[in-house]
Amino acid sequence: MTKFAVIGGGSWATAIAKMLCVNESRIIWYMRNEAAIEHLQTEHHNPNYLSSVTFQIEKLDLTTDINYAIANAEIIIFAIPSAFLNNELAKLEVALNEKVIFSAIKGIVPETSLIVGEHFHEVYQIPYENIGVITGPCHAEEVALERLSYLTIACADAKKAKVVAHALSGNYIKAKISDDIIGTEYAAMLKNIYAIAAGIAHGLGYGDNFQSVLMSNAIREMKKFIRKVHKMKRNINNSAYLGDLLVTGYSVFSRNRMFGNMIGKGYTVKSAMMEMSMVAEGYYAVKSAYKLNEEYGAKTPIIDAVYSILYEGKEARKVFKKLTEKLD
Amino acid sequence: MTKFAVIGGGSWATAIAKMLCVNESRIIWYMRNEAAIEHLQTEHHNPNYLSSVTFQIEKLDLTTDINYAIANAEIIIFAIPSAFLNNELAKLEVALNEKVIFSAIKGIVPETSLIVGEHFHEVYQIPYENIGVITGPCHAEEVALERLSYLTIACADAKKAKVVAHALSGNYIKAKISDDIIGTEYAAMLKNIYAIAAGIAHGLGYGDNFQSVLMSNAIREMKKFIRKVHKMKRNINNSAYLGDLLVTGYSVFSRNRMFGNMIGKGYTVKSAMMEMSMVAEGYYAVKSAYKLNEEYGAKTPIIDAVYSILYEGKEARKVFKKLTEKLD
Repeated sequence: MTKFAVIGGGSWATAIAKMLCVNESRIIWYMRNEAAIEHLQTEHHNPNYLSSVTFQIEKLDLTTDINYAIANAEIIIFAIPSAFLNNELAKLEVALNEKVIFSAIKGIVPETSLIVGEHFHEVYQIPYENIGVITGPCHAEEVALERLSYLTIACADAKKAKVVAHALSGNYIKAKISDDIIGTEYAAMLKNIYAIAAGIAHGLGYGDNFQSVLMSNAIREMKKFIRKVHKMKRNINNSAYLGDLLVTGYSVFSRNRMFGNMIGKGYTVKSAMMEMSMVAEGYYAVKSAYKLNEEYGAKTPIIDAVYSILYEGKEARKVFKKLTEKLD
Repeated sequence: MTKFAVIGGGSWATAIAKMLCVNESRIIWYMRNEAAIEHLQTEHHNPNYLSSVTFQIEKLDLTTDINYAIANAEIIIFAIPSAFLNNELAKLEVALNEKVIFSAIKGIVPETSLIVGEHFHEVYQIPYENIGVITGPCHAEEVALERLSYLTIACADAKKAKVVAHALSGNYIKAKISDDIIGTEYAAMLKNIYAIAAGIAHGLGYGDNFQSVLMSNAIREMKKFIRKVHKMKRNINNSAYLGDLLVTGYSVFSRNRMFGNMIGKGYTVKSAMMEMSMVAEGYYAVKSAYKLNEEYGAKTPIIDAVYSILYEGKEARKVFKKLTEKLD
């Protein structure tokens, strides 16, 4: 048995594989793209993402077979866009219920409107003590550059969180543990909505003064929302919540912020998505968050604004004009 | 009697004069620089700061006589660097104690190590109900561009806060009031220290991931510090605290961040100051905050780190390496 399998071939999966290879002698790494695996095997780097990162190839057990990956590892780290998760899981022939699942996915599973941890719990009956979350604040690109980054590893079972934290830690990675699996995962999902909002504001011509007000309101809104979902003692200003919001909301490289920026500049949702040819997790997240909140009833003017622009065809300029009245 | 006098000729004073002129028919505006006044009178803009802002000259009662300005206005808004305040106040021949004083200064008076409100209260016996604070998050440059900005006007006397908030509000300015005069002023002062820290980190080569962790720790540290100074119910994530921290910490135009950046890149404190030919408020603030905290004993690793670099000649790289162990 190998200890870890990484599921996914994108930039965050590549960053996680890089971090694990510092401490592990061998990992299983699944990706769909066969050409990428061939390239990795001959050139020792992922051709499509973080291509500057060189791997010791003898450490990688590369496979295009997700069943092989899952059958042969104890801890499975999922790092694929949430929109693709269900498709991948549909291929499963091996049982998941003996496995420890860590999600490095920051989003909602569109088919079930659940965050990833909940999805595994409800659809695959995996107990919460075998489910964990790997969360930032962490751009994969900076892992590639070996710039100091802090991760939060959340699991109801602190022992398992420690195992994963230890395996990811290194010279440039500090990983701390948390027991707030629901809260950290919702934060990671909600921050993408706020990054879209930041992008829309920027696209509409709002400046840095407004951006800081938006982020200040966003963290308060996030706190209210998460408290409704799962009430427990948490400091919303910890890195896994506020830090993660800031690294995304202030990053010009964030896909979600970029997507929002195009909407603010007047692109339709459809054309912005086509133009980007990437998945903006926040697009799915805002729909789920909005629907969920119909039950919870938290006061979430920013989520409501983004929802009405992306799903109700409302004009961004008008919606934001109204939103500015609700912020303080 | 004119209602408002603005004291100062810099960019923030110019922004405040601009905001007031939307609602007031006439304001008194004091600045030391006679040439700037002449330029304003003939060209209708301040030649040195926010020079794109055109004033209706008939609204401006310009003067180089601080005694004239103070004698003839009800509410005096101070907007000069804290390091120059004492010098200006030394010129006073008219009494201050009948006046309402609002500070738009974000710093510590070096001579007394007091924040500006405390300085007026202790040195000039002005009661706290006649002292207020004008705080951001607000870059003056964005006021010039008429980009939407939110101000917080704090005063123990809500009525006076409302008068000032009303006079500053406009199409692109939303001003709300607060009764936390001590907390908002300390936040405005402390944020400059954290902006220096952000600059040092950047100068040393730390990236966006670390910056978000630094800001997440900074707001928690700020909360602890301010709570020791003046315990009351406040939401540290409101715009006047967190927003103000973010707009400064994330701004590449912030003087404090720029100063820190130079320190991180290896400049000595002296050469960085000479190179900038501007006052970095945080330089004075960190000394006072550090000394104050010797009494308070709040856990402030970021303030301590900046202090030891700026005042104890410690090497930035080593200090930050140690600091990273204390953050989470």
